[in-house]
Amino acid sequence: MTLTVAEMPLTPREVRAQIRLGRWRRPTPALAPGFAQANLVVLPREQAFDFLLFCQRNPKPCPLLEVLEPGQTEPVQTAPGADIRLDLPLYRVYRNGRLVAEVERLEEHWSDGLVTFLLGCSFTFEGAMRRAGLPVRHVEEGKNVPMYRTSISTRPAGTLHGPLVVTMRPIPASQVSRAVQVTGRFPAVHGAPVHVGDPHAIGIRDLGSPDWGDPVTVRPGEVPLFWACGVTPQAVALESRPPLMLTHAPGHMFITDVPDEELAVM
Amino acid sequence: MTLTVAEMPLTPREVRAQIRLGRWRRPTPALAPGFAQANLVVLPREQAFDFLLFCQRNPKPCPLLEVLEPGQTEPVQTAPGADIRLDLPLYRVYRNGRLVAEVERLEEHWSDGLVTFLLGCSFTFEGAMRRAGLPVRHVEEGKNVPMYRTSISTRPAGTLHGPLVVTMRPIPASQVSRAVQVTGRFPAVHGAPVHVGDPHAIGIRDLGSPDWGDPVTVRPGEVPLFWACGVTPQAVALESRPPLMLTHAPGHMFITDVPDEELAVM
Repeated sequence: MTLTVAEMPLTPREVRAQIRLGRWRRPTPALAPGFAQANLVVLPREQAFDFLLFCQRNPKPCPLLEVLEPGQTEPVQTAPGADIRLDLPLYRVYRNGRLVAEVERLEEHWSDGLVTFLLGCSFTFEGAMRRAGLPVRHVEEGKNVPMYRTSISTRPAGTLHGPLVVTMRPIPASQVSRAVQVTGRFPAVHGAPVHVGDPHAIGIRDLGSPDWGDPVTVRPGEVPLFWACGVTPQAVALESRPPLMLTHAPGHMFITDVPDEELAVM
Repeated sequence: MTLTVAEMPLTPREVRAQIRLGRWRRPTPALAPGFAQANLVVLPREQAFDFLLFCQRNPKPCPLLEVLEPGQTEPVQTAPGADIRLDLPLYRVYRNGRLVAEVERLEEHWSDGLVTFLLGCSFTFEGAMRRAGLPVRHVEEGKNVPMYRTSISTRPAGTLHGPLVVTMRPIPASQVSRAVQVTGRFPAVHGAPVHVGDPHAIGIRDLGSPDWGDPVTVRPGEVPLFWACGVTPQAVALESRPPLMLTHAPGHMFITDVPDEELAVM
C-alpha cells in the first residue's frame, strides 16, 4: 500500500515508521516539513577515515550532520530510535565503482565494521525559500530535484576523489540575491549556491537531462542556480572505486528529528 | 637570540622563519596580526579516525582548519611551505596519558604514520574584539591567555573522551553582548562564548589559578566570558591515554597564512 503526500504523517518519527512499513518508496521533498533531511553514506572502516577527511575538505557538498560509531545503526544525535538500514525509502549499493543494486533495505548488505555518515540536504532550506516567496520548481511540479555531475573537481582525500554534483533550482532574475541570502543562512545544508547562471561553464550540457532526479521547467527570465549536492559521494564512488559504498537513492533521503531552523546561522 | 614583539616581522611566512631559527619560544598572541593561528594535534593513524570524529562531534573546542594526509608535514592549504615539526615555538609530547616532554622541534618524535590536525584558535577573533573596542586583557598585560579545565564533558568519539577546556577574557558588563556578537561571527575559531559569568558553575574553582597560561586581572564591573579552547585535545590525551599525541604548548600556536576575516561569517 502506497500513501500520498497528503496521507503521510507530519512528524519525522511517524514518517520513518511509514517508510519502514514500505508505504513510501519515492523521493522525499516536502515530507515532514520543518525537519532536516539527510544524505546517507556508509563505508567500511578502512575507507571511513578518508571519507571523514573528504567531508572536512569539501564541506559544501558534504556537510556532516552525524557520524555513527563503526557498526552502529541508530543515529542517536539526529534521530534516536531510527535504524538507518530500514528507514529510508530506497538505497543504492556501489561495489568497486559500479552501481550494482537498488534495494529497499540494507540488512543483507550490512556488516559490523561499517561506518555511517549523515550529510545535510538542500531540501532543508527549501522551506525557508518558500516562506521567502521563492519558487521551488521541483516541489511545484511534484518531481525529484534535478542533479548534475559538473566539471568542478572536489578536493581529494586519501583514496577518494571525483566531481562535484549539484542540484538546480531556477529563480527569477530579480530574486537571485534573495535566494543567495536565504540559503546562505544554512551552511550546514550546502549553504549558498556554488554557481549562478551558465550551466556550460561548469560542464553541464543540457539542463533538460539531469544525471539524477527529474528535469524541471525553466521559465523565461529565470536564472539557473546550482547548489552543492550530497550525491557527490556517489559520483566519488563511481570514480574512486571503494570496495563498498551504501547510499540513499538520490532524492530518497533520511528524515531526521532536527528542526530546519536549528541548522541556520543567525 | 630572542626577538621582542616589536622586532618580529608582520607576515606569517616571516614569523614562521624566525620561529624556525629559534628566535621566538614564547606564546604567540598578537604575532602576525590579521592572520589565523592554529592549535596542533598529531596522532598515529590508528587514533586519527577517532579524533576526526571527535572534532566533528565537538566543533566548538575543535574547529578543523586543515587535516594533513598521513605522514605529511606541510599544511598545503593553510600555510604552503611550512613544516609543522619546526615552525611552532614550543611543543608538548604526551605518551599513554602523560605529558612526558616539552620540546622545541618535533623531528625526533616524528614517524611516517602520523596524522596532523590544525584547529582554529581564539587568538583569531581577538583582532576583531580590539577593533570593536573590547578589552583583551592578556594582550594588554603581555601575558598568555588563561585556560581552565571545566566540569563540562565533551562528546566522546571511539576511544577519546575528556573535559572541555576554556579560555577566559573579562569583559565589562555593558559590553558582554557586543563580545558575544563579535566572536559569534567566527564559528571556525571557537565562535561565541560557551559560558558567561559564574566560574563555579562550570567547575572552575579559582580564576587566579588557570590550568594553563597566565592569570589576568578581572576588574570590578567585569564579567568573565569563557570560550571553548583548542587545548581540549590535550585534556583528552590526559584522560583517554592514546599511545602518542604531539601538540603545541598551550598559547604557542602555529601561525597560518589564512586571513582572520576569511574565517568570519557575514
